[in-house]
Amino acid sequence: MKIGIMGAGQLGRMLGLAGIPLGLTFRFLDPSPNAPASAVGEQIVGEYDDPHVLERFADDLSLITYEFENVPMESACRLQALGKLVLPPPIALETAQDRLIEKQFFRSQGIPTPPFRPVTSYEELREAVRTVGLPAVLKTRRFGYDGKGQVVLQTEAELVPAWEALEGSPLILEGYIPFQRELSLIAVRGLQGELAFYPLVENHHREGILRLTLAPAPNLSQSLQQEAEEYGRRVLTALNYVGVLAIEFFEKEGHLIANEMAPRVHNSGHWSIEGATTSQFENHLRAILGYPLGMTTPRGHSAMINLIGSWPSPETVLAFEGAHLHLYGKPPRPRRKVGHITLTAETIEGRDALVEEIRQQHIVDF
Amino acid sequence: MKIGIMGAGQLGRMLGLAGIPLGLTFRFLDPSPNAPASAVGEQIVGEYDDPHVLERFADDLSLITYEFENVPMESACRLQALGKLVLPPPIALETAQDRLIEKQFFRSQGIPTPPFRPVTSYEELREAVRTVGLPAVLKTRRFGYDGKGQVVLQTEAELVPAWEALEGSPLILEGYIPFQRELSLIAVRGLQGELAFYPLVENHHREGILRLTLAPAPNLSQSLQQEAEEYGRRVLTALNYVGVLAIEFFEKEGHLIANEMAPRVHNSGHWSIEGATTSQFENHLRAILGYPLGMTTPRGHSAMINLIGSWPSPETVLAFEGAHLHLYGKPPRPRRKVGHITLTAETIEGRDALVEEIRQQHIVDF
Ligand SMILES: Nc1ncnc2c1ncn2[C@@H]1O[C@H](COP(=O)(O)OP(=O)(O)OP(=O)(O)O)[C@@H](O)[C@H]1O
Ligand SMILES: Nc1ncnc2c1ncn2[C@@H]1O[C@H](COP(=O)(O)OP(=O)(O)OP(=O)(O)O)[C@@H](O)[C@H]1O
Repeated sequence: MKIGIMGAGQLGRMLGLAGIPLGLTFRFLDPSPNAPASAVGEQIVGEYDDPHVLERFADDLSLITYEFENVPMESACRLQALGKLVLPPPIALETAQDRLIEKQFFRSQGIPTPPFRPVTSYEELREAVRTVGLPAVLKTRRFGYDGKGQVVLQTEAELVPAWEALEGSPLILEGYIPFQRELSLIAVRGLQGELAFYPLVENHHREGILRLTLAPAPNLSQSLQQEAEEYGRRVLTALNYVGVLAIEFFEKEGHLIANEMAPRVHNSGHWSIEGATTSQFENHLRAILGYPLGMTTPRGHSAMINLIGSWPSPETVLAFEGAHLHLYGKPPRPRRKVGHITLTAETIEGRDALVEEIRQQHIVDF
Repeated sequence: MKIGIMGAGQLGRMLGLAGIPLGLTFRFLDPSPNAPASAVGEQIVGEYDDPHVLERFADDLSLITYEFENVPMESACRLQALGKLVLPPPIALETAQDRLIEKQFFRSQGIPTPPFRPVTSYEELREAVRTVGLPAVLKTRRFGYDGKGQVVLQTEAELVPAWEALEGSPLILEGYIPFQRELSLIAVRGLQGELAFYPLVENHHREGILRLTLAPAPNLSQSLQQEAEEYGRRVLTALNYVGVLAIEFFEKEGHLIANEMAPRVHNSGHWSIEGATTSQFENHLRAILGYPLGMTTPRGHSAMINLIGSWPSPETVLAFEGAHLHLYGKPPRPRRKVGHITLTAETIEGRDALVEEIRQQHIVDF
């Protein structure tokens, strides 16, 4: 069976690597030629919103999914109109693409978020600061990633430069959360509504980019995991979702505040390839194919370290026992995710020792 | 870096799946179009012994390996003559392709084998039976696999029909070993001569075809593992081998008797994808690339069940917790290896219970 995937980046590549053993073949759509996923399937080079391209892409496919979160919802709907099963449901795209709709959706499900206000003019920004308070974060509602399109406001004096930097796009002002740590939940819902959740993982960012994920999150209480799963259940059910979805949280005073969600496999779930019985990639495919979901149980303790901009020589990485290297086949470029390393160990101490070694020997800067 | 692989069957496919995350790309050579490995790289369709095909295949490659054991040694040498690094060394092909040379080689290394005699005429067969005794197994020296090209002789009366069935090819008569069980060793040697060994696994055949591998082998004593590793060390070192090599043994009275070897990744090592820290496929690539070898430590207990001729629906297989499905993308055909299932569990009991369930529910016939 051939599956269509919108986007042919590293997420598509890892979906392909998980799907080939299941007997699947893939066709990817991506505007950049020789994208990472072209190593594991056919790639159609073209724009996501070009109706002719979409027709050519959809051709003999019956099932289409996405690995790129900014696929226009209209394109997904157009594919549905061509008689194709498109999963996750396109509405999830629209909800996740706009930070305002996303936060309103979280609130509608009783899920806490930072205080927020939409901003379309400088006056609205000033008013929003009054309601939300300072410090705050001004963000573009759409197309932000890896910390792009956002400015932290500490004082009133920063309002003007922030406004000048971002004006022109619809914005949102969010209260700044003095969080203890950032956690994320990888959740999956099957065609029959079955649910499965990976353990919460702890994420460390630098310069707005995810650098390190510890899986499971250290000192994870059962009650926090339950809180996350309850929120996950609400999100998946409300969207009638099928596939893998990630929710990023702030942990504050022992509770979770939702930051954002991604209607796709997620960087903070890459550890599951070696670190869980079933990877997020295989579970996404199982879900959309209507197969039984696989066990999300962790196998030991893992750490995922992103390779940003460039990568160390394979020799140095593979010299570490329990290190697994994943290169995405992308040319090096500053701030770009070009690969990751997963470290697996049987114990937390073993895992932490490995992370420390990699750091101290400057194998990767994270 | 692009690696050339002679053969594009399921072993090539799994080498590709292991190598893509390391940033490798692949070119395969195989006479059958759309072979299983074509899902993970470019395939050149052509004969292994056609000089023009070999030139086209080798083109811009610097490193070539094989996944098919009957690649003619001359072809491997021809690729070397084109200035390519060919690993494992071609001499290993010649040694493993001829059961007579193979057994003489084992003996030269002090590794026990069944008693054996070359047979080129009916007279030699009768004389061989006198030296080797009955029961015995008459085999073609070359191109046997999955029990093809061999006849068991129980009585003198069976000599004539056996001779008539096999005459024409060079033959070998082996004493029949009343073994307790069959075990195999997956061994790997790096470019700098480093060695690593997976734990011995227990293999169950039916109709000459491997059906089930238990990994590690139940009740594996340290001394038996040491015996196997010592034999493995001798074989790898004598051949100046680089890459993964498998040795199949009979266990009799607590000791090992070598049956045959394969100068490549091996069916009885497939469990290592999920069941070991580093799979045999990744370790083969690490070895030939001169990278550090990966840990061969098992992760829990695994069972590998071959899918022969056809396969069950993915839904039924994936409904078992801890079941991993591997389909090779081959059309179904009697006696053909079309896929395998790996069952992983934390304990032996868990693993055995899974194997029993699969058997009792007739998911696979093994
Ligand atoms: N309201 C907030 N309070 C505190 N920190 C915040 C807030 N919003 C964002 N951050 C910080 O900035 C990081 C990136 O923010 P956010 O996730 O909104 O942006 P993004 O560009 O969409 O990131 P990603 O690429 O992870 O999707 C967060 O992980 C967090 O560290
Ligand atoms: N000398 C022997 N004594 C007892 N059993 C034997 C002997 N030789 C072969 N057998 C049985 O036949 C099976 C197949 O034999 P062998 O491994 O020589 O053949 P093959 O066709 O090369 O198999 P494979 O496909 O596993 O390489 C063995 O696994 C074993 O069960």
